Amino acid sequence: MTLFKKSEYLERLAKTKTRMAEAGIDVLVASDPANMNYLTGYDGWSFYVPQCVVVSLDDDTPLWIGRGMDAAGARHTTYLPPDDIIGYPDHYVQSLERHPMNFVGDTIVARGWGNKTVGVEMDAYYFSARAYSELQKHLPEARFANADLLVNWIRLVKSDAEIAIMRQAGQIATRVMTTAIEKLAPGVRECDAVAAVYQAQMSGTETFGGDYPAIVPMMPTGDKTSAPYLTCTDAPYENEQMVNLELAACRHRYHCPIARTAYIGKNPPPKLVELAEHTVEGLNITLDAIRPGMPAEAVERVWRDHIAKAGLEKESRIGYAMGLNYPPDWGEHTASLRPGDKTELAPNMTFHMILGMWMDDYGFECSESFRVTEGGCETFADVPRKLFVKQ
Amino acid sequence: MTLFKKSEYLERLAKTKTRMAEAGIDVLVASDPANMNYLTGYDGWSFYVPQCVVVSLDDDTPLWIGRGMDAAGARHTTYLPPDDIIGYPDHYVQSLERHPMNFVGDTIVARGWGNKTVGVEMDAYYFSARAYSELQKHLPEARFANADLLVNWIRLVKSDAEIAIMRQAGQIATRVMTTAIEKLAPGVRECDAVAAVYQAQMSGTETFGGDYPAIVPMMPTGDKTSAPYLTCTDAPYENEQMVNLELAACRHRYHCPIARTAYIGKNPPPKLVELAEHTVEGLNITLDAIRPGMPAEAVERVWRDHIAKAGLEKESRIGYAMGLNYPPDWGEHTASLRPGDKTELAPNMTFHMILGMWMDDYGFECSESFRVTEGGCETFADVPRKLFVKQ
Repeated sequence: MTLFKKSEYLERLAKTKTRMAEAGIDVLVASDPANMNYLTGYDGWSFYVPQCVVVSLDDDTPLWIGRGMDAAGARHTTYLPPDDIIGYPDHYVQSLERHPMNFVGDTIVARGWGNKTVGVEMDAYYFSARAYSELQKHLPEARFANADLLVNWIRLVKSDAEIAIMRQAGQIATRVMTTAIEKLAPGVRECDAVAAVYQAQMSGTETFGGDYPAIVPMMPTGDKTSAPYLTCTDAPYENEQMVNLELAACRHRYHCPIARTAYIGKNPPPKLVELAEHTVEGLNITLDAIRPGMPAEAVERVWRDHIAKAGLEKESRIGYAMGLNYPPDWGEHTASLRPGDKTELAPNMTFHMILGMWMDDYGFECSESFRVTEGGCETFADVPRKLFVKQ
Repeated sequence: MTLFKKSEYLERLAKTKTRMAEAGIDVLVASDPANMNYLTGYDGWSFYVPQCVVVSLDDDTPLWIGRGMDAAGARHTTYLPPDDIIGYPDHYVQSLERHPMNFVGDTIVARGWGNKTVGVEMDAYYFSARAYSELQKHLPEARFANADLLVNWIRLVKSDAEIAIMRQAGQIATRVMTTAIEKLAPGVRECDAVAAVYQAQMSGTETFGGDYPAIVPMMPTGDKTSAPYLTCTDAPYENEQMVNLELAACRHRYHCPIARTAYIGKNPPPKLVELAEHTVEGLNITLDAIRPGMPAEAVERVWRDHIAKAGLEKESRIGYAMGLNYPPDWGEHTASLRPGDKTELAPNMTFHMILGMWMDDYGFECSESFRVTEGGCETFADVPRKLFVKQ
């Protein structure tokens, strides 16, 4: 029932154990839903309750621990033997007296690991301050270590099987962006354009469907383009306005983000047209420069040097590792294309390079999701890199 | 620019301060995006980075603290004066050396509140173990208190203005469920049915649009009905199978969840038809019994007594408070319709009552979202309560 072969999960597990041993961690409690999926195949919308995968150096397979009613989902989607899928009773859910992490601690003790060094993902979205405190209470003899991003760094390099799925996400992303741009017109309500985007995200292609992306569609226009994470309203798009499209497609939880800027109207300002040309040229040049072995920061430098010639600069990072994920973010929180990031690019690392140039009252953005190849890079989606003008 | 009048936000703030004072909390750091919205109007998909609203008993308005690029969104959506919208620099984002909660701690010190009792939402989704630890480091003279659910309990009773929006969500929910049931047919891929649901969720009605619900559509069929939180695949629906539909509509972040069961085929098993009749009758009787002043557990008892006559029982709670929310959950984590919950029902409390009856190889569910009124209850959506048979 798993998405990948069992051997692939076991390879991931072996890499994880190597990193655990290097970090002096005996038992890893992974709460990040993407890491849980990566290690076991588990896929479900159950991260609204505490859950985790527990990896012990002592044990051949991990434990899945979650809400009792989700154990069936774990049996459906993971390769784990039934004894290693452990559901906690429902009286642990949203209770003031007890917490699911008490149960997790008790389970770790019962397995004989109560006096080990336990790694926890201190900054994972769904590992709350209380979750940590309650786990500590029920593991009084354990030492704790921060295992944040330990598995994320392994996820950075994809297998060929993962890349095959990301290519499918890329095919869907092409349709998603094309649909969005087609839908834009004066008088169309933002919510109806977003509805068409969702439709394209889920329907995918004739041969395979889509999955819900980790971030909702962003299509701000007018003065809201300066506030990138405001979601849509039911106001109609106006004429002679620009729209930023930050979208994605997802297949089996693997993402292909894609961003473009469109202009609704006949008269895009010349300064916008010019900015678009510089930015697209910079994107092309920067993608062309990518080689395995290059440090992540050197990719950013190619871009920086290019736009400096046009008298432009951009303060923030220009890209980040992405792939398998759940809301609220498709980014992997590891390597970034920014000054100071020495991560050496390697084949099958996957990034979203997003070049957003924001001036006082206009801006342009264009992005590509790609993998590093043996000789350069391969982009996943196929949408023209340009300012789209919708007359 | 705010959704509600400023006076409504100030009323919410006054109630919050009263509860803070009762709990001995001088300064509240609210990280739950729903609580941030409730207190200030802030609405954006920015909870993938640490952010909070800080309420001090000393200060007339709260502070919004978030990523610099989201400050523009806060200016768009809140009533806060510019000085109380504070963006942290981008080098705090996903950094190993520093954490946004260091900035929050420093800001609290700068406001002169560093030696106060600071309440934090210990079990909020986006308040991670590291966030708490980093906040503590930069507030060495503060005492900490658990303020989990402090604001959520205030949210339980809605204003008339909030109810008006929930009625709109109800109108959309009616369309969403109707669309889903219409779309179900043998051979239709799950992902295409879910695509139609998304379309209906966002397009809303001719006069107002929808918003993304906090949980994605759940429409499992076949043996996946036993695993409630598995999301959709691209497999086609089969003939002579049941489908559980757990859906919702959202308007301005206020939800109306709704669940139904449909049967694709001509021959629903008699035992399913019979179960549906008992369950719907129980839902009707239980909704009819609701009165303000009743303890939450007494609502559950009406249901329990009814189905016991048919020789049935249900272990888990039958409903929960809901309303304003963000992923991953539309529930408010406060009152539940379950044994032991003594919460006294009051007008404008809003719940989702969901009756799911699961047998070994079949099941039925039916739900309503409602508010408590002066004399009973008012349901928000308008979809027949029955087993839908799609021949």
